[in-house]
Amino acid sequence: MKENELIFGIRAIIEAIQAGKEIDKVIIKKDLQSELSRELFAALKEKPQIQLQRVPVERINRYTRKNHQGAIAFVSQTVYQKTEDIVPFLFEQGKNPFIVILDGVTDVRNFGAIARTCECAGVDAIVIPSRGGALVNADAIKTSAGALHNIPVCKEKSLLDTVKFLKNSGVKIVAATEKGNKLYTDACLADPVAVVMGAEDTGVSPEILRQCDEMVKIPINGNISSLNVSVAAGVLIYETIRQRG
Amino acid sequence: MKENELIFGIRAIIEAIQAGKEIDKVIIKKDLQSELSRELFAALKEKPQIQLQRVPVERINRYTRKNHQGAIAFVSQTVYQKTEDIVPFLFEQGKNPFIVILDGVTDVRNFGAIARTCECAGVDAIVIPSRGGALVNADAIKTSAGALHNIPVCKEKSLLDTVKFLKNSGVKIVAATEKGNKLYTDACLADPVAVVMGAEDTGVSPEILRQCDEMVKIPINGNISSLNVSVAAGVLIYETIRQRG
Repeated sequence: MKENELIFGIRAIIEAIQAGKEIDKVIIKKDLQSELSRELFAALKEKPQIQLQRVPVERINRYTRKNHQGAIAFVSQTVYQKTEDIVPFLFEQGKNPFIVILDGVTDVRNFGAIARTCECAGVDAIVIPSRGGALVNADAIKTSAGALHNIPVCKEKSLLDTVKFLKNSGVKIVAATEKGNKLYTDACLADPVAVVMGAEDTGVSPEILRQCDEMVKIPINGNISSLNVSVAAGVLIYETIRQRG
Repeated sequence: MKENELIFGIRAIIEAIQAGKEIDKVIIKKDLQSELSRELFAALKEKPQIQLQRVPVERINRYTRKNHQGAIAFVSQTVYQKTEDIVPFLFEQGKNPFIVILDGVTDVRNFGAIARTCECAGVDAIVIPSRGGALVNADAIKTSAGALHNIPVCKEKSLLDTVKFLKNSGVKIVAATEKGNKLYTDACLADPVAVVMGAEDTGVSPEILRQCDEMVKIPINGNISSLNVSVAAGVLIYETIRQRG
């Protein structure tokens, strides 16, 4: 974690939020209580996309020895966009939208590797949740080989709402899951499509699965039950490109 | 690097070599000269597959504070097999061989991820060079999710000779390279095939490329010039599986 990714101190964090700086997460000392901290909570209430965590002070101390006043903010390394802005624009331009949704991919290296693949393949946007996903930090950007500076990333408060919006816009939702009833190569990915990749451990969440038009699986012929999520994403993304010719 | 992967001290290394222990690499203090060290060099001469590196003593000190006598051996975490044993056996069994050759993939995490994909897809063997490739160490095994305990790994002194052997055995050699004149989806991968993936920076080496039956590329539609090698391997491996039905 580089220092330029962090903001220390309650006043500095409030100012950054009010200035519209992109912040992924704020961690606050468990028992923090003061006039100023109430101001911080009020500012955070206005920005529900910023994740708030209460932690033991020791965890904050691990990031810095400076006077952090019990609060650190994690600055995002990218400017987020909105799915609701991007998708209609793609249709208007006569494009065939190709979206990748990451439902809880937490490992920054996996996230970075998937972003790199998306950029190489020409995916139009990556959608991540505002809570429970990987941070767009320096490690993610490095693993992405800079892709995270090139490809639009949409951070959404509710992935479920985003999936519903995409469906209503005419985008087919295809989830990768071991429970899939169809091989990924048998699904039609040539239409406007959003491919959903799930968390490394639990996969795509049930409420998202229920909204999916297709649940597809990648065949496993060996003894290990699953591929690495960044490899699985690569296989699905390039099958989509293949089908689109 | 865990301690059980290392052997310290010249006498201990000589004994391990003579006992037939699988050793990937020995690093030796630059100016090491003694009766015992000459014995070590003689033992290493008998095992050309073991990589020998002369390094400043500071590099050895980084691995241990024990009395290493200027020499450390890196014990392999797998038992290597021979391409010449495996391939004829696959043909005899009526199988359609599918080999993956890693020509200089040095990052252990990439190596581990590729091994995991190979195991999942049902690749018959991974071929690596005895010099210049990633070590089969604990990190590689962890990233492979244990695949490196399940899939045969062949460590070959000369990848060029191995490629020639495979060709003579009726295996088609297909290299992944940005210079490829054909899309990977246009190559026929349904025959007995060996897919060659190159080093992260320099790609497949020219002498191997000259022996290849096909040079294929994965289409890049974005601004970043190449995929991560473990993702590219996944795309090619699963295209092979798709074509084989």
